[in-house]
Amino acid sequence: MSKNLTSRSEDYSKWYNELVVKADLAENSAVRGCMVIKPYGYAIWEKMQAELDRMFKETGHQNAYFPLFVPKSLFEAEEKNAEGFAKECAVVTHYRLENDPDNEGKLRVDPKARLEEELVVRPTSEAIIWNTYKGWIQSYRDLPILVNQWANVVRWEMRTRLFLRTAEFLWQEGHTAHATKEEAWEETKLINGVYATFVENFMAIPVIQGLKTESERFAGAEETMCIEALMQDGKALQAGTSHFLGQNFAKAFDVKYTNKEGKQDYVWATSWGVSTRLMGALIMTHSDDKGLVLPPNLAPNQVVIVPIYKNDEQLEAITEVANNIMNGLRAKGVSVKFDNRTTFRPGAKFAQHELQGVPLRIAIGPKDLENGTVELARRDTLTKEVVALEGIENVIEGLMTEIQDTLFKKALNFRDEHITEVNSFEEFKEVLETKTGFISAHWDGTAATEEKIKELTKATIRCIPIENKKESGKCVLTGEPSEQRVLFAKAY
Amino acid sequence: MSKNLTSRSEDYSKWYNELVVKADLAENSAVRGCMVIKPYGYAIWEKMQAELDRMFKETGHQNAYFPLFVPKSLFEAEEKNAEGFAKECAVVTHYRLENDPDNEGKLRVDPKARLEEELVVRPTSEAIIWNTYKGWIQSYRDLPILVNQWANVVRWEMRTRLFLRTAEFLWQEGHTAHATKEEAWEETKLINGVYATFVENFMAIPVIQGLKTESERFAGAEETMCIEALMQDGKALQAGTSHFLGQNFAKAFDVKYTNKEGKQDYVWATSWGVSTRLMGALIMTHSDDKGLVLPPNLAPNQVVIVPIYKNDEQLEAITEVANNIMNGLRAKGVSVKFDNRTTFRPGAKFAQHELQGVPLRIAIGPKDLENGTVELARRDTLTKEVVALEGIENVIEGLMTEIQDTLFKKALNFRDEHITEVNSFEEFKEVLETKTGFISAHWDGTAATEEKIKELTKATIRCIPIENKKESGKCVLTGEPSEQRVLFAKAY
Repeated sequence: MSKNLTSRSEDYSKWYNELVVKADLAENSAVRGCMVIKPYGYAIWEKMQAELDRMFKETGHQNAYFPLFVPKSLFEAEEKNAEGFAKECAVVTHYRLENDPDNEGKLRVDPKARLEEELVVRPTSEAIIWNTYKGWIQSYRDLPILVNQWANVVRWEMRTRLFLRTAEFLWQEGHTAHATKEEAWEETKLINGVYATFVENFMAIPVIQGLKTESERFAGAEETMCIEALMQDGKALQAGTSHFLGQNFAKAFDVKYTNKEGKQDYVWATSWGVSTRLMGALIMTHSDDKGLVLPPNLAPNQVVIVPIYKNDEQLEAITEVANNIMNGLRAKGVSVKFDNRTTFRPGAKFAQHELQGVPLRIAIGPKDLENGTVELARRDTLTKEVVALEGIENVIEGLMTEIQDTLFKKALNFRDEHITEVNSFEEFKEVLETKTGFISAHWDGTAATEEKIKELTKATIRCIPIENKKESGKCVLTGEPSEQRVLFAKAY
Repeated sequence: MSKNLTSRSEDYSKWYNELVVKADLAENSAVRGCMVIKPYGYAIWEKMQAELDRMFKETGHQNAYFPLFVPKSLFEAEEKNAEGFAKECAVVTHYRLENDPDNEGKLRVDPKARLEEELVVRPTSEAIIWNTYKGWIQSYRDLPILVNQWANVVRWEMRTRLFLRTAEFLWQEGHTAHATKEEAWEETKLINGVYATFVENFMAIPVIQGLKTESERFAGAEETMCIEALMQDGKALQAGTSHFLGQNFAKAFDVKYTNKEGKQDYVWATSWGVSTRLMGALIMTHSDDKGLVLPPNLAPNQVVIVPIYKNDEQLEAITEVANNIMNGLRAKGVSVKFDNRTTFRPGAKFAQHELQGVPLRIAIGPKDLENGTVELARRDTLTKEVVALEGIENVIEGLMTEIQDTLFKKALNFRDEHITEVNSFEEFKEVLETKTGFISAHWDGTAATEEKIKELTKATIRCIPIENKKESGKCVLTGEPSEQRVLFAKAY
């Protein structure tokens, strides 16, 4: 199977598209731009969800659910937000189909069932949620509200790609309400930190936390924080965002609270989200020309055992060994599958598990039975080793941690090697095209310069890192004074 | 708070509506017929989801995700299914909004952004899923497919009620594909059994498993199995359905497989679902005039501890006791919350926890500190008891099981007392109006009689119980011969 995969060096984009489909993660559907997330891909997403959900709850958040539809009049209430999303909205205009009188057996939209007010399929839920919060908030006692929602959203993107940019995608969106600006800002930072921790520790993807420039901000936000990752082709990927919304939505929906002194003020807001786009980041950070590579934390099966046998007697003996290993591993919380399918030969199984990124493969054959050994094959390093059966559970438990760490370090090295300081625009263009990656350069702080650089190079300012040191210099394009370097890159 | 709740005897329907809102479970939204599920309500739904998801996976099912939208041409492919849902479909016709030239600051649908083919917001996903399965299935090796999806669906109902009937609701929908009729039928029964076990053991709601009559079947199914529960007002509620779809969808979407002998045949299908409607069943089965009553399995907080104190010193001493109890309970897997809010008095806390159905309340006051006791108050029986602090964790652990059992038995007694055999139509009408509940009566097996009885009494055939004994008799309406009794009731 894997021999059909295009190599990264040949065509990175094609490699990605093929990998997503061949590894059974997702596929395009009959609906333009909408994907089907297949069971194997969804199992990985479920692992992300479970861990994020745990982290949100640990930091005091609760889940809730708000309507899929936003009446147009609510949608347009916060003008910048509406303007930002208006051009990519799926709109429900009717609520009934009827038999098509001109076309037997076919249906058509019933013209009599036109909605009085059109409904926008949520591209994001600030509007419907803040319209709801208005009824929940009277006094400081009702604050903060720390709510998250797991949901589907729709943005009618013109150019779509599986996981990276789809018309419908799955995500979580947090929407919090606070009495003070300081508290809302702390929440914005807290969540961006949660995202960074999750993506680094759980997904083994190093990220840079930073602030977006004004032109890259979420429509309706006063500040947008983000985590930026670097893919193997040297392009950046925004993996999550946390927005400080100021009082914009509170003002648009007239949400005020009475403070302890009895005075009224508008409520402060944040919103934040990560989506199935993280699947794209996962794939493009770790995978290789043989297929998917999964960090153990995200693997639906961390270990797979493949029996190699010529007769039933051998299979029976191998099964006994496999059962013992499985019991031992499960007791340690390592997930393991015994691939005893009779419809596939060992070679085909090896190829499939390699393509699907199972972190560790155990092969057990007749010789292993004689010698009290098994063969371990690591997906990340593609190395094989024959090890003693005794104490194998401890070895494997250790390997899970080691593989997770190895993947993170490898990605971190790559990322760090691909942050290049440049001091001239020539150098900027040169590095962008040849070495690729993040470019750390001085910028004069104006949207005009940012736009000009984007026009000339397709690179955008990915973020102003929060751990940036102040350093005076001259803008790489205009030569105007600058106080700090920012990170540019071409991006997904 | 609870004193404002209308009593069940006064107005059952009003009691329900008030309870849902006052207990902070859900509320109506700005979108006609769509609800907001509030954090407390959603936390209960999450408990249901987690347990059902575990049960599905234990029986070999995997989760996946399919598009929200169904192109009209796919939607209409299975004619009966299309006909069944056409009248309640939300339809997306456009993909963009634009500034309204006649109305500054407002948006309107961009007439240039009309979709070539309208998209139906899924009312159920058979069509989009079977169109996808076509690409997944070639041979018997690809079968069975055992897939479930957690999703939102939209059915444009004209009369809506929180949880019971909403335009958008959350559910899971299983969609399986099989090589043989027998296997698909076994799956249909297996899942109906999973639903029955879940609703009885986890939600403490007794159900009757049965088959739907032809007129009550899912549109496009050959058989529909169901679980039927009885609410306190004597009306039945369909709590879950499992459909044997025959080869209807395989034929509509041309999904064939090659069997071991190399011959081609259409694939056999099932689909099955339960929804947030279960929240309605939960509320109406156990709750009382003081508010929600939750079985411990479903309670976000199984135990709440309320301190009663006059000064900081007392609070400190109570906090220490509370912490010990909490550590002990958490070690036993019992969830517990210490309600030490300073913004509410104990009486208000008691009222809130009663209204929200917390199974067990612990009050600790200065006298308890002196005596080494605490006060336990059970929500189900509304009884209070002062018990020794020593060994309290074991007492409470036992109470959790006891409360769960008590609620189930109480509901079972009520249900069993409300199944009445009748042998004449006079008796049928009399029992239906006075005693209410399920009526076990002979029926001649025709849709015409079923329809006539519905017209005359508003009662429908809820199901033909699978454990029915054969018994010859005469139809309660027509006097025609009948082989078995069926269950009638008015229903939600």
